Amino acid sequence: MYKPIDSSMSPRFVGPRSFMRLEHIRTTENVDFAVIGVPFDTAASNRTGQRYGPQHIRDFSVLLRPYNYDQDINIFDYCSGVDYGDINVIPGNALRTYDNIVDGLTPVLENDITPVMMGGDHSISLGHLRAFAKRYGPVALVHFDSHSDTWDAYYGEKYMHGTPFRRAVEEGLIDVEHSIQVGMRGPLYGPEDIEDARDLGFEVIPMKDVFKLGHDEVVKRIHDRVGNKKAFVSFDIDFLDPAYAPGTGTPEVGGPTSHEALEFVRSLDGLDLVGFDLVEVLPTYDSGEITAVAASSVMFEMITLIALKKRRELERK
Amino acid sequence: MYKPIDSSMSPRFVGPRSFMRLEHIRTTENVDFAVIGVPFDTAASNRTGQRYGPQHIRDFSVLLRPYNYDQDINIFDYCSGVDYGDINVIPGNALRTYDNIVDGLTPVLENDITPVMMGGDHSISLGHLRAFAKRYGPVALVHFDSHSDTWDAYYGEKYMHGTPFRRAVEEGLIDVEHSIQVGMRGPLYGPEDIEDARDLGFEVIPMKDVFKLGHDEVVKRIHDRVGNKKAFVSFDIDFLDPAYAPGTGTPEVGGPTSHEALEFVRSLDGLDLVGFDLVEVLPTYDSGEITAVAASSVMFEMITLIALKKRRELERK
Amino acid sequence: MYKPIDSSMSPRFVGPRSFMRLEHIRTTENVDFAVIGVPFDTAASNRTGQRYGPQHIRDFSVLLRPYNYDQDINIFDYCSGVDYGDINVIPGNALRTYDNIVDGLTPVLENDITPVMMGGDHSISLGHLRAFAKRYGPVALVHFDSHSDTWDAYYGEKYMHGTPFRRAVEEGLIDVEHSIQVGMRGPLYGPEDIEDARDLGFEVIPMKDVFKLGHDEVVKRIHDRVGNKKAFVSFDIDFLDPAYAPGTGTPEVGGPTSHEALEFVRSLDGLDLVGFDLVEVLPTYDSGEITAVAASSVMFEMITLIALKKRRELERK
Amino acid sequence: MYKPIDSSMSPRFVGPRSFMRLEHIRTTENVDFAVIGVPFDTAASNRTGQRYGPQHIRDFSVLLRPYNYDQDINIFDYCSGVDYGDINVIPGNALRTYDNIVDGLTPVLENDITPVMMGGDHSISLGHLRAFAKRYGPVALVHFDSHSDTWDAYYGEKYMHGTPFRRAVEEGLIDVEHSIQVGMRGPLYGPEDIEDARDLGFEVIPMKDVFKLGHDEVVKRIHDRVGNKKAFVSFDIDFLDPAYAPGTGTPEVGGPTSHEALEFVRSLDGLDLVGFDLVEVLPTYDSGEITAVAASSVMFEMITLIALKKRRELERK
Amino acid sequence: MYKPIDSSMSPRFVGPRSFMRLEHIRTTENVDFAVIGVPFDTAASNRTGQRYGPQHIRDFSVLLRPYNYDQDINIFDYCSGVDYGDINVIPGNALRTYDNIVDGLTPVLENDITPVMMGGDHSISLGHLRAFAKRYGPVALVHFDSHSDTWDAYYGEKYMHGTPFRRAVEEGLIDVEHSIQVGMRGPLYGPEDIEDARDLGFEVIPMKDVFKLGHDEVVKRIHDRVGNKKAFVSFDIDFLDPAYAPGTGTPEVGGPTSHEALEFVRSLDGLDLVGFDLVEVLPTYDSGEITAVAASSVMFEMITLIALKKRRELERK
Amino acid sequence: MYKPIDSSMSPRFVGPRSFMRLEHIRTTENVDFAVIGVPFDTAASNRTGQRYGPQHIRDFSVLLRPYNYDQDINIFDYCSGVDYGDINVIPGNALRTYDNIVDGLTPVLENDITPVMMGGDHSISLGHLRAFAKRYGPVALVHFDSHSDTWDAYYGEKYMHGTPFRRAVEEGLIDVEHSIQVGMRGPLYGPEDIEDARDLGFEVIPMKDVFKLGHDEVVKRIHDRVGNKKAFVSFDIDFLDPAYAPGTGTPEVGGPTSHEALEFVRSLDGLDLVGFDLVEVLPTYDSGEITAVAASSVMFEMITLIALKKRRELERK
Repeated sequence: MYKPIDSSMSPRFVGPRSFMRLEHIRTTENVDFAVIGVPFDTAASNRTGQRYGPQHIRDFSVLLRPYNYDQDINIFDYCSGVDYGDINVIPGNALRTYDNIVDGLTPVLENDITPVMMGGDHSISLGHLRAFAKRYGPVALVHFDSHSDTWDAYYGEKYMHGTPFRRAVEEGLIDVEHSIQVGMRGPLYGPEDIEDARDLGFEVIPMKDVFKLGHDEVVKRIHDRVGNKKAFVSFDIDFLDPAYAPGTGTPEVGGPTSHEALEFVRSLDGLDLVGFDLVEVLPTYDSGEITAVAASSVMFEMITLIALKKRRELERK
Repeated sequence: MYKPIDSSMSPRFVGPRSFMRLEHIRTTENVDFAVIGVPFDTAASNRTGQRYGPQHIRDFSVLLRPYNYDQDINIFDYCSGVDYGDINVIPGNALRTYDNIVDGLTPVLENDITPVMMGGDHSISLGHLRAFAKRYGPVALVHFDSHSDTWDAYYGEKYMHGTPFRRAVEEGLIDVEHSIQVGMRGPLYGPEDIEDARDLGFEVIPMKDVFKLGHDEVVKRIHDRVGNKKAFVSFDIDFLDPAYAPGTGTPEVGGPTSHEALEFVRSLDGLDLVGFDLVEVLPTYDSGEITAVAASSVMFEMITLIALKKRRELERK
Repeated sequence: MYKPIDSSMSPRFVGPRSFMRLEHIRTTENVDFAVIGVPFDTAASNRTGQRYGPQHIRDFSVLLRPYNYDQDINIFDYCSGVDYGDINVIPGNALRTYDNIVDGLTPVLENDITPVMMGGDHSISLGHLRAFAKRYGPVALVHFDSHSDTWDAYYGEKYMHGTPFRRAVEEGLIDVEHSIQVGMRGPLYGPEDIEDARDLGFEVIPMKDVFKLGHDEVVKRIHDRVGNKKAFVSFDIDFLDPAYAPGTGTPEVGGPTSHEALEFVRSLDGLDLVGFDLVEVLPTYDSGEITAVAASSVMFEMITLIALKKRRELERK
Repeated sequence: MYKPIDSSMSPRFVGPRSFMRLEHIRTTENVDFAVIGVPFDTAASNRTGQRYGPQHIRDFSVLLRPYNYDQDINIFDYCSGVDYGDINVIPGNALRTYDNIVDGLTPVLENDITPVMMGGDHSISLGHLRAFAKRYGPVALVHFDSHSDTWDAYYGEKYMHGTPFRRAVEEGLIDVEHSIQVGMRGPLYGPEDIEDARDLGFEVIPMKDVFKLGHDEVVKRIHDRVGNKKAFVSFDIDFLDPAYAPGTGTPEVGGPTSHEALEFVRSLDGLDLVGFDLVEVLPTYDSGEITAVAASSVMFEMITLIALKKRRELERK
Repeated sequence: MYKPIDSSMSPRFVGPRSFMRLEHIRTTENVDFAVIGVPFDTAASNRTGQRYGPQHIRDFSVLLRPYNYDQDINIFDYCSGVDYGDINVIPGNALRTYDNIVDGLTPVLENDITPVMMGGDHSISLGHLRAFAKRYGPVALVHFDSHSDTWDAYYGEKYMHGTPFRRAVEEGLIDVEHSIQVGMRGPLYGPEDIEDARDLGFEVIPMKDVFKLGHDEVVKRIHDRVGNKKAFVSFDIDFLDPAYAPGTGTPEVGGPTSHEALEFVRSLDGLDLVGFDLVEVLPTYDSGEITAVAASSVMFEMITLIALKKRRELERK
Repeated sequence: MYKPIDSSMSPRFVGPRSFMRLEHIRTTENVDFAVIGVPFDTAASNRTGQRYGPQHIRDFSVLLRPYNYDQDINIFDYCSGVDYGDINVIPGNALRTYDNIVDGLTPVLENDITPVMMGGDHSISLGHLRAFAKRYGPVALVHFDSHSDTWDAYYGEKYMHGTPFRRAVEEGLIDVEHSIQVGMRGPLYGPEDIEDARDLGFEVIPMKDVFKLGHDEVVKRIHDRVGNKKAFVSFDIDFLDPAYAPGTGTPEVGGPTSHEALEFVRSLDGLDLVGFDLVEVLPTYDSGEITAVAASSVMFEMITLIALKKRRELERK
C-alpha cells in the first residue's frame, strides 16, 4: 500500500520531489494508480519547454493532502498510488517517443493500474491512446482544451501538438461516437478548425457555448455522450484562462476559472474512466507557480475520481 | 492585399516580430487598417517602461489567427492590414511627441485607413485625438479604463498620463456629449475624480455600476450615448483586473475578467468606429506574458470590428 | 493629524516606502490607526520568505489614494494614521517574537489606536490575539482564509503558521462563540481539519458553502455570529484565488476573486472592529506585484472600516 | 550622532528600508554625510526605470556593516550620517528637476555635509554640479563610466542622460583642467565620442587603456590630474562589467570586476572629495540583486572615503 | 548602402527589433554582410528554447553603435549590411531544416555576402557548413565552445546539438587539418570526449590549456593552424563563463570573461573569414539580458572583422 | 555499484531530479559517498529560503558528467555513490534539527561513507561537526566563506547561521590548531570579526590577503595547516563573487571567480578529507541558475577528491 509521506510529521520540502510525496518507484504490484511523466516537447509549434512540465508539477504537488473535501473521500482509504517516474522520451523524434510510451504503459495497463500522465506537449496523447487502444480497443475521449488539436499538419509535419486527435481517429484509437471536446476558443484559421473536429465525429462544445449552456447542461452532455464506454480524459492546461494558467504554450483568453474547471473534472464521477493525461504545462512561462498550483489540483481531482470509482466498486461487492 | 504569414506553413517564432505576423511596411496603399506603436512613457506618474509595450504585444501577437469564431468572420476576407511600425517619439518631450503622432497619423487618416494604436502611456491619446479631430472634427470617445484620466495636472505638469481627456475636451477634440467612460474604480483622491469627468460632459459608468447594471445594460448605454457619431475607442489595459493584466502602470483590483472585457469590445459592433488605441501595457510588470495575451486579444477584437464594418459596407452596396 | 503625502504634488516613487505614503513614525499621540509590520516567517511549514511581506506591501501601497468610492468616504476626513514601523521579531524564535508583539502593541491599544498588522506568516496572529485579549479580554474573530489553522502541531512543534487559532482558543484569547471562519478549501488531511475547528467552537463556512450560500447570506451569518462583540479580523491573503494572489505560502485554487473578497471586507461595516491583520504575503512567489496590489487593497478597505466607525461615532455625538 | 541600527540586535529586514539602516531624517544638524536619492529617469535614451534605483539600493544596503576591513576604519567612529530621503523630482521635466536638486542640496552643502547621491539616470549629475558650483565654484570631476556622456543632444533634446558633462562644461560648473574620465568602451558613433570629451578638456582613460596601463598607473594619473582641487566623484554603475551589474540602462561588456572597481574607489583616498553620486541603477534589469550588491558596496566605499578624510582632519588637529 | 538607423535622431526602442537597427530586408544587392537567424532548437539535449535566441539578440542589439573603438573602424565606412530575417526552420525535423538553411544561404554566398548566423542550437552549424562547402569546398573551422560537439549520437539520434562537427567531418565539409577548437572544459563522459575530436583531426585547446598558454600563444596557434584557408567561425555562447552568459543550454563554469572572449574574436583579424555563427543563446535562462549583451557584442566584433577585411581589400587595390 | 544514469542514452530531463542522476536510495551498502540534503533555513539572519537549496542544486546537477578532465579521473572508476535524500529537518527548531542530522549521519559515517552535505543555511554545519566529532573526534576544518561565522549570537539567539564555528569550538568538535578559514571580506561590525576567529584558534586568510598571497601560497598554507589530520571541508557558496553566485543569503562583492574557487577545491587533493558541506544556496535570489551551476561544480570537485583519495588508497595496496 503506497501513500504520501505525512507532511505534518515531515516538512513538505524534504526529500525527492515526487508527485504528492508518493514513493518514486517503478512497480506494478499493489498499485491502483500511477503518476507518469512524459517530458516531451519536440512537437510544440509555438513556445517550447514542456519537457520541464512534469518536474514543475511535482515540485508544487508536495502541498497536496490526501482528503478531498468537495468529494468527501480520502483517496488512500481506497487506493494505493505511486510516482512511476518518466517515460524515456527521445527529443526530436515523436515516433520513437510514442513507441517508448506504449512500451512503458503496457505493463501498467495490463495490471489494471490507472495511469495519470503528465506532459509534455499534447502530441504525447497519441502515444497514450495507442497504448490504451492496444489494451481496451478504441476508447471514448473526454477532451478539455482551448483547441481541438485536429489539424492535419504543420509545415508538412504530421506529428505535432496540434494534430494528435486527427491521427488518433485515423488510427482507430478513439471511439469517436462517444467522444467530446469542451472549451475551444480564441482566434482560429477558419470555421473549419471547429467543423473539421465535428466532421471527424467529435461532439464539440466551444467555450462560447459553455458560457451559454451553463455548467450543468455541459456536464449532462458529457455524460450522455460518453455513456458507459471506457473513457480517457485529456486535459490541456490551456483550457483554463491564462490568468489561472499562464505557463502554457498557446494560451487563449476567455477561459474558465480554476474553480469552474475543477467542477468539470469533479463532474466526471460516474463515468468508466480508465486513464488521464494533463498536458502543456510550460514552466518557463509560469509565474509564482500559478500554473503548477492549477495543474496539481486538476490531477488531484483526477486521482480522486479513481478513488471514487474504487469505492463504488467496493460498495457494489 | 496584406495579410498575416500562414503559421501552419511557417513557424510563428520565425522572422520579425510584427503584429499578428503582418508585413512591417509603411504604406497607405491597399491598406484598410494599420497597427501603429507609440512607445512613449515620459508621462507616467507611477511605474514606467511603457515604451516597451508595443514590442511586447507584437512578440505575443504572432499567436493570433485570422478567423474570429465569436464574431464569425475572417478578418482578411474583408480587410488588408499592415504593421505600420512605430511613431518616432521624443522621450522627455510630450508636446513634440504629439506633433510626431499627428504628422504620422495624418497620411493614414487621409487615406481612410483605420489606425489601431499601441501605447505607450495614456498621455498619447491626446496626440491621437488631435489627429482624429483634424481629420474628422470632434469625435465621440468610448473609453474603457479604471481611471477617468481627467485630472488637471501632476506636480504642475499638464501633459501627463492622467490628464489627456481633460486636455482633449479643452482643445475641443472630443464630442463629449456622445462620449462615455466605463470601468472607473479603486481608491481616488476624492469623489470629484468622477464628478469632474461628468462636469466635463462625459457619461461615466464606474465599475461599481457595471456590476449593478450588468453587461447588456452597459452596452445599451454605450450605443445610446454614441449613436451614429464617428467614434474613437481608447482602451487602457488596466480596465482589466490585475489578475488578467498585471503588466500595467496603475493596476486597480476589482475589474472585469478578460472574457467580460472582450465581450464589451465585441459589443461595439454597429458603431461608426474610426480609430482605436490600446495603452498602458508595461512589460516589466508582466509575468508569463499574461498581459500580452490580453492586450493582443483586445486588439484582435478591435480589428475584427473594422472587418465587420467593412462587411456591412460591402453588403450595403 | 497624520495623512498621506499628496501624490498629485509629489511623485509616488519619491521618498521612503511607507504604507500609503503615511509618515513613518512611532507615536501614539493624535493617531487613530497604525499600520504595523511583523516580518516573521519562522513558522511557515512550506514556502518561506514572508519576512519580506510588509515591505512588499508598502512598496505597492504608495499607489493608494485617500477616498473610497465604494464606501463613499475620505479616510482622512475622520482619521489620522501612521506607519508605525515593524515589530522587532526574533527569527527562529516564535515565543520571544510573541513577547515583542505584545510589548509593541500594548501602548498602541492602550491609546485606543486601531492597529492594522501586516505579516509575516500566520503564526503571528497568536501574538496579536494575546495583546488584544490583554486589553479587551477575549475577542470575536472574523477569519478569512483557505485554511482553518487549527491544527495542533507540525513535526511536534506547537507554534507554527497552521496552529495559531487552536493555541488562541486554548489560551482563552478568543470569544469563540462569536467567531467565524470563511473560505476553507483545498485538499485536507481529513474531514477532521474542518470538524476540529467546529469542535473548538468556531462557525466554519468552507468555500464550497460560500459558493452555495452566496455573498449576502454569508455576510448575514458573519454579522449574526459576531453581534456587538469587539472583533478582530484576520485575513490570510491565500483566501483569494491564486490567480489573484500567487505570492503566498500555501495557495489553494478555487477561491474568490479580488472583487468578491473586497466585498466581504466592505460588508464588515457595522461590527465593533478593534483590530486587523493581513498575513502570508510572500513576495518571492509574487509576480508583477499582483499579490501586493490585492493585499494593499484589502488593507485599504480595512482602514476604511476604521474611518466608517469613526464617522458613526461622530454622528452619534 | 546618527549611525545604523545594530543588526546583531535587530534583524536587517525589520523596519523601513533606509540606506544602511541609517535614520530617515531630513536634518542638517550633527550630520557629516547625507545619502540622498534622486529618482529621476525621464532623460534615459534606452531602457527606463531608474526612478526605482534609490529604493533598490536601499533595500539591499541593509546588509552593510560599519567597519571597512580594506581601509581599516569604522565609519561611525568619525562620522554621523543620515538617509536624507529623496529629492522631489518632476517626471517629464529635467529642468524643473534640476531646480529641485539645487534647492535640496543647498542647505546640505552650506552645512558642510558631504552628500552621497543615488540616481536616477545620469542627467541628474548636471543638477548636482550646479549645486556644487554654486557652493564651491567649479569642481574637479572624477568620472567612472563606460560612456563619456558628453554628447550634445538626442533627437534635438539637450538634457538627456548622455549629455550632462557637456552641459556642465558649457555652464562652467567643472574645473575641467583637473577632471578625468575612466572606463569608456563599447561600440561608439565614431572616434569623436572620445575625442570630443578630450576637446572639452577632460583627460580620458578608455577601458582599453586601463587594461594596458594597469591599476596603479591609472590611480596615479587620477591623483596627478585632480591634485588638491575640490573634487566630485560621479560613478555610473555601468562602469562595471554587466556580469557584475546587469541592472543598468546601457550596459557595455568588457568592464572591470567589482573587486577592480572597488579598488579604484578606495584609491581616491587623499583627494579633497566634497561629493559623490552613483547613478543608472535600473532594478527591472537587475537579477538576484547582483547590481544592488555592487552599488551598495561602491557607496559604502564612498562613505568610507568621507570617514578617512574626517580622520585625517582630526589627526591634523 | 544599408546601415543602422541613427539612434541619436530616433530612439532605440522605436520600430522593429532588427539586428543593430539594420533594415529588415531579404535582398542580395549592395550587401556585404547579412545577419540571419536560425531559430531551431529541436536538437538540444538538455534545456530548450533556443528558438527565441535570434529575437533576444535582436532586442538588445539596438544598443550597438557603428564605430569599433578597439579596432578603430566604423563598420559602415566599408560595409553595407542587412538583417536578412530568419531561415524557415522545421521544428522537430533537423534534416528538413538543414535543407532550408542550405537553400536560404545559397543566394547569399553566391553573391559573396558574408553571413553572420544566429542560433538556435548548435546542430544548425551542420546546415551552415553544408552551404559553405557547397560554395567554397571544405572550410577551416575556428570553433570557440566549452564542448567539442563531436559526439556520435544521443539516444540513437545522429543530428543533435552535440554532434554537428563529427557529422561535418564525415560529410567532408571541414578542412580539418586547418581547423581548431578552443575552450573545452567541464565534466566529461571520459577523456575520449577530447581525444575523439583530436582523432577526427581537430587541434583542440581545452580551457585548462588556454589558462596555461595565455592569450597570445592561443592566438598564434589559431593563426598558424588556419593559415590562409577560407575559414568559418562558430562561436557557442557557452564558451563564456556562465556569469557572463547564463542564458544557454549547457553552461560550464571556469570559462573566460566577456573581455577575454572578445579579445579572441578581435584577434582573428587577418584570417580569410567567409562566415560566422553565434549559437546556443537561450533567453529563458538569461537574466537582465546579460547573455544578450554578450552575444550582441560578439556579433559586433564578427561584423567588424568583415569590415576590416573589406578595408584591407580596398587598401590593397 | 551505484553510478549516474547515462545521459547519452536517456535525456537529462527525464526522471527524478537526484544529484548527478545518481540513484535516490537510503542505503549504506556498497556506497563510497553519499550526497545528503539538509533543507534548513530557520537560522538565516537576512534572506531566507535556503530550504530549497538542495533541490535547486539537484535540478541543475543532472548536467554533470562522470569524468573530471582537470583532475584526469572518472569518479565512478573508483567510487560508488548515491543521493541519500534529505535529513528530516524541523523548521523553527535548530537544536532538534541538529539531533536529526547526527542521527542521520551516524550510520553513514560508521560505514566509512564520505558524506557530501548540501544546505540549507550555514547553521547546519554545527550538526555536521557534531556527527563527525562523534565518529572521529575533533576534525580539522577547511572553511571557504566570505564570513568567519564565529559571531556569538544574534538578538540573543545562539544557534544562527553566523555562529556555528564558535559553537563548534566551544563544544570541542574542531581541531582548531589545524583549521583554516579563507575568503573573509566585506563590511564588518569591526576588526574583531576577524580577530575573534583568530582568538578562537583559527588561521584566517581574508580575501584581501588571498589577492596578495596568490593561489599557490594560499594552497601551501592550507596544506601546512591541516597536515595529515582528518579534515572536514565547509564551503559557503558566498565565498564566490556574487556575479558567480548571486543566489545566496549574504553576498559580498570582491570574491573569486568560479574558476579560481574550483582551483582551490581541486588543490585540496592530498588531504585526509572525511566530509564536505556546501551551504547557503538560496534559489529565490538565483537567476538563470548561475548559482546552481557553480554549486554543482563545486560538489563535483568535492566528489572527485573522494575518488582521488580512493585511487591513492588502491594504488597504495
